[in-house]
Amino acid sequence: MSEIEITARHRVFGGDIAFVRHHSDAVAGAMAFSVFVPEGEGPFATLYWLSGLTCTANNFTEKAGAYRRASARRLMIVAPDTSPRGTGVADDAAYDLGQGAGFYVDATQNPWKPHFRMETYITHDLIQAIEANFPADPGRRGVSGHSMGGHGALTLALNNAHLYRSVSAFSPIACAMRSPWGIKALSAYLGNDHAAWERYSAATLIAEGSVKAFDDILVDQGRADPYIDSHLMPELLAHAASASGQKLSLRYHDGFDHSYYFVQSFIDDHIDFHADRLA
Amino acid sequence: MSEIEITARHRVFGGDIAFVRHHSDAVAGAMAFSVFVPEGEGPFATLYWLSGLTCTANNFTEKAGAYRRASARRLMIVAPDTSPRGTGVADDAAYDLGQGAGFYVDATQNPWKPHFRMETYITHDLIQAIEANFPADPGRRGVSGHSMGGHGALTLALNNAHLYRSVSAFSPIACAMRSPWGIKALSAYLGNDHAAWERYSAATLIAEGSVKAFDDILVDQGRADPYIDSHLMPELLAHAASASGQKLSLRYHDGFDHSYYFVQSFIDDHIDFHADRLA
Repeated sequence: MSEIEITARHRVFGGDIAFVRHHSDAVAGAMAFSVFVPEGEGPFATLYWLSGLTCTANNFTEKAGAYRRASARRLMIVAPDTSPRGTGVADDAAYDLGQGAGFYVDATQNPWKPHFRMETYITHDLIQAIEANFPADPGRRGVSGHSMGGHGALTLALNNAHLYRSVSAFSPIACAMRSPWGIKALSAYLGNDHAAWERYSAATLIAEGSVKAFDDILVDQGRADPYIDSHLMPELLAHAASASGQKLSLRYHDGFDHSYYFVQSFIDDHIDFHADRLA
Repeated sequence: MSEIEITARHRVFGGDIAFVRHHSDAVAGAMAFSVFVPEGEGPFATLYWLSGLTCTANNFTEKAGAYRRASARRLMIVAPDTSPRGTGVADDAAYDLGQGAGFYVDATQNPWKPHFRMETYITHDLIQAIEANFPADPGRRGVSGHSMGGHGALTLALNNAHLYRSVSAFSPIACAMRSPWGIKALSAYLGNDHAAWERYSAATLIAEGSVKAFDDILVDQGRADPYIDSHLMPELLAHAASASGQKLSLRYHDGFDHSYYFVQSFIDDHIDFHADRLA
């Protein structure tokens, strides 16, 4: 299914941002994303942006200030919602489980199993919808994200290096199986199958080092982020990269917190990082 | 009263954005604003940004992408809410009257008169709170805004040229007394006193030409803006400026609409316009 419905469209800098809804077989329901397309002839390199807990397709689109530089570098940017939503889709009252908290995994446990298949959605259905409907070059995909979405970017890229040529993250959950957020979500979505958990823990994947498809991984982290020690643990990425020989450019920034004010302050560097590798 | 309460603060680019609440005598209640302060030694030139219908202090702050360039130009930016709010403050169910729709006038009619005194709030209480609590240079103030806030920027600057040294606008209501939005609001807030209405109609003030304190006025307008002919009427600004000899740089942009995607696409030009004049 690659039919889409464009629900809104705006001119921004040298391109257009569209808000899109489409059916996904993977999540057995409707999904929403935004897509920025630069003006001119494609096909364009495409950056997939995965958002964090509680986010929709709107947070990055409205708050990251990404389209000035994306226009200049002629980079498409796709920002999907963080989970399936709506009536008939399981949910939890907590902000960190269920709708808005898909964690980019394919759930194997009820009640999540029927719809919470975000790994397959991002790596298959979303790519299919984008490349069937927009001037995206299938050979030039990058992935980035923030917090839960940084975890998503790192784990999906490391598990699917044939799909993505560049990967970066802001304030990622470095090791979901050791983070309170991740432990809660992986327990619910995957049960007690800890071998499955390892597939969704970025630091574990980097340490295993079975794939070094990426010449570098760019990670930015604010030192004033209230979650840095309790939930994100960026030093685990550094240790893992050091152990396996994966090059990692982990940058700490004094004074910056976990908000999109941090993301917007360094998004140009990430756009350049991806555009350079997808040229 | 210049005591303030900082409710949130974030590092962004080379500075800090703070969200602030304070008491305003003018509106007889609490008001909210955001303020961006570049790092380093002040005092800094300050741009006051007035937002449009339905907006709070958050819309510009989150969506305009202004702080990269403001950091580079070392410009403070203050973005106040568009009206007093809360219980005890009059309101209307419509989006274009009452809370979120102050129109930057001092109401003379009930039920609006006790709190809806946004002209005095912006030109007195807000300036006082900023200059008592932040490193703002009292001699270097500019004002800009969007839609209803573009109307506010133009009318407050033209009526108070001793307060502001630079003025610009995005998609302003060019002549509130001829716009359906303005007619509704001015009728409610000022009654049938049409002489008072003229003080709040930008094109009228420019045509009268009694004050040419500004070497130029920069106005950006999207041609795909759905309100351009019915509510904004930018050509009235051009006619007025031509009649009085006020220099006006009115720029039309194909494809751009009334959203903050338009504002963010040209905000750097406005920051430069003000920073140059406030140097």
